[in-house]
Amino acid sequence: MTSEFDVIRHYFQQVADGIPLGVGDDGALLDIAPGHQLVTSADLLLEGRHFLADTPPETLGHKALAVNLSDLAAMGAAPLACLLSLGLPQVDDDWLQKFSSGFHALAKIAACPLVGGDTTRSEHGLVIGVTVMGTVPRDTALRRDAAQINDDVWLTGTLGAAYVALQALWGKQVASVADREPLMAHLQCPQPPIFFAPQLRGIAHAAIDISDGLMQDLGHLLTASDKGAEIDYQALPSHPAIRQLPAAPLAEALLAGGDVYQLCFTAPEAHRNTIAKLAKQHQVQVSCIGRVTQKKGIAIKHLPHPNLIPAQLGFDHFLD
Amino acid sequence: MTSEFDVIRHYFQQVADGIPLGVGDDGALLDIAPGHQLVTSADLLLEGRHFLADTPPETLGHKALAVNLSDLAAMGAAPLACLLSLGLPQVDDDWLQKFSSGFHALAKIAACPLVGGDTTRSEHGLVIGVTVMGTVPRDTALRRDAAQINDDVWLTGTLGAAYVALQALWGKQVASVADREPLMAHLQCPQPPIFFAPQLRGIAHAAIDISDGLMQDLGHLLTASDKGAEIDYQALPSHPAIRQLPAAPLAEALLAGGDVYQLCFTAPEAHRNTIAKLAKQHQVQVSCIGRVTQKKGIAIKHLPHPNLIPAQLGFDHFLD
Repeated sequence: MTSEFDVIRHYFQQVADGIPLGVGDDGALLDIAPGHQLVTSADLLLEGRHFLADTPPETLGHKALAVNLSDLAAMGAAPLACLLSLGLPQVDDDWLQKFSSGFHALAKIAACPLVGGDTTRSEHGLVIGVTVMGTVPRDTALRRDAAQINDDVWLTGTLGAAYVALQALWGKQVASVADREPLMAHLQCPQPPIFFAPQLRGIAHAAIDISDGLMQDLGHLLTASDKGAEIDYQALPSHPAIRQLPAAPLAEALLAGGDVYQLCFTAPEAHRNTIAKLAKQHQVQVSCIGRVTQKKGIAIKHLPHPNLIPAQLGFDHFLD
Repeated sequence: MTSEFDVIRHYFQQVADGIPLGVGDDGALLDIAPGHQLVTSADLLLEGRHFLADTPPETLGHKALAVNLSDLAAMGAAPLACLLSLGLPQVDDDWLQKFSSGFHALAKIAACPLVGGDTTRSEHGLVIGVTVMGTVPRDTALRRDAAQINDDVWLTGTLGAAYVALQALWGKQVASVADREPLMAHLQCPQPPIFFAPQLRGIAHAAIDISDGLMQDLGHLLTASDKGAEIDYQALPSHPAIRQLPAAPLAEALLAGGDVYQLCFTAPEAHRNTIAKLAKQHQVQVSCIGRVTQKKGIAIKHLPHPNLIPAQLGFDHFLD
């Protein structure tokens, strides 16, 4: 197993139903249903920055695709196909077998077949580039610039687990967290709401994924929409395993913790019951955490202490 | 200029006509004309492997997109949009300005606007991932598996220039090449036949880009088509600046030299005049270099010596 072509053929060339032409030509060929628009997004994951070298390859394969599916979900798009570009320090068949298993398993669940990409040797650590494509019926995509005054602000899933797991991986002990296993699963195996999100088309006004942390990404949504929001700190869905944290690290985990591949969306109050029903159908946890305001900025109500807003809000790859 | 968001906003957020939603949301939103299929391809370029650290940033920006446009051309697709993922060792405004200029200049010429991607810090050299999307009318894409017996085998452009330039960059002097400038331009600023290629729909049977070298990529086309070919060595379009090379390095440059972002395509003899006329219209050099045979393999006629077939045919990223 030494050739680039062998690597692609062996691990990444699967025939998918409904794909006119996949891996193996200069490009893949895809059908787009009439009346639909294409949604596309790309993410680059680098060893040492987005994951550690000893991350289990199955979970890394899962995560590389999951973080991109999260972007499709945030647009309300149904997955169509994906491309994977790999820079490999060496051809390690065991690693490739496990990585591709994790990737393909999620691709299958999400109906997002791998149709192309690139494989090359990397002198400096693993490089993973994923591009996803999805579709939405014309003019129904969930944009971030469409929040309306008095919309409810909703979150899927829980907050803080991935952040605390990441702190632990970096050797920063966070007090009082007994069981790291479920936290690590949140970090390494994110489960974006890929089936629930498309159901929000026509119901939600605006949506964004909160991979850079709630405050930062909600901030982007509100800026794009030229609005503000009032958030109820007590309504934030903290992960059960981090609730016993002291107030300051808890606030940091909830408000600024990144690597959350869940949605923040806004919707009219009239749709509360519909949203709750859809969430139940799709077994997705949803929380109404506040409302959109005319007044700019994010006001946080019911903080246990007034000075708990973390100084460093969110994670910016160039601010370190 | 320190934040990831600033980098994206400043250098890569251009508003393109006809794009419903580009850089700045979770995903880009694109229209696909009715009756058309989507063609997509991705390439990963790593510093030290695909380019040297001191490559001029304008030409690198150009090349990162050009190598992907070459894949669209090889499918007969018209460009639709592209995504750019950058791993940057540092935020160097001068470099970013020049790189993005080179990228955008070609994107504009090719009508292939940048609609999204990712920007992150890289600890280990520059990482460039590009995904392109294009469209073709349904069932008209130029595949590599459709060559027919007795088809002419055609090439666009010339062979060997990029290979000789690359040898020179690696410090391997290739004898008798006086003027390196035009060779370096071939290597650093490839000009795939992006406007000519879509004109071949309905005319060519099969097509492939020969970025890994003529013999290797023609081999892929023939294998996919379950055919062979007879190639006339004397008909190969060698770049004028390398014609004075000794026979052995010349044969290696022509037959095995990679980094050629040009097309190899097959077409019935009946279309010779049409192809010549289209090529003239688009100012693309075309050469008829042989024909497709029932007999498998590639037979090369009119070699100056019978033993000139290079041992290492083509470039495989894992065979070194």
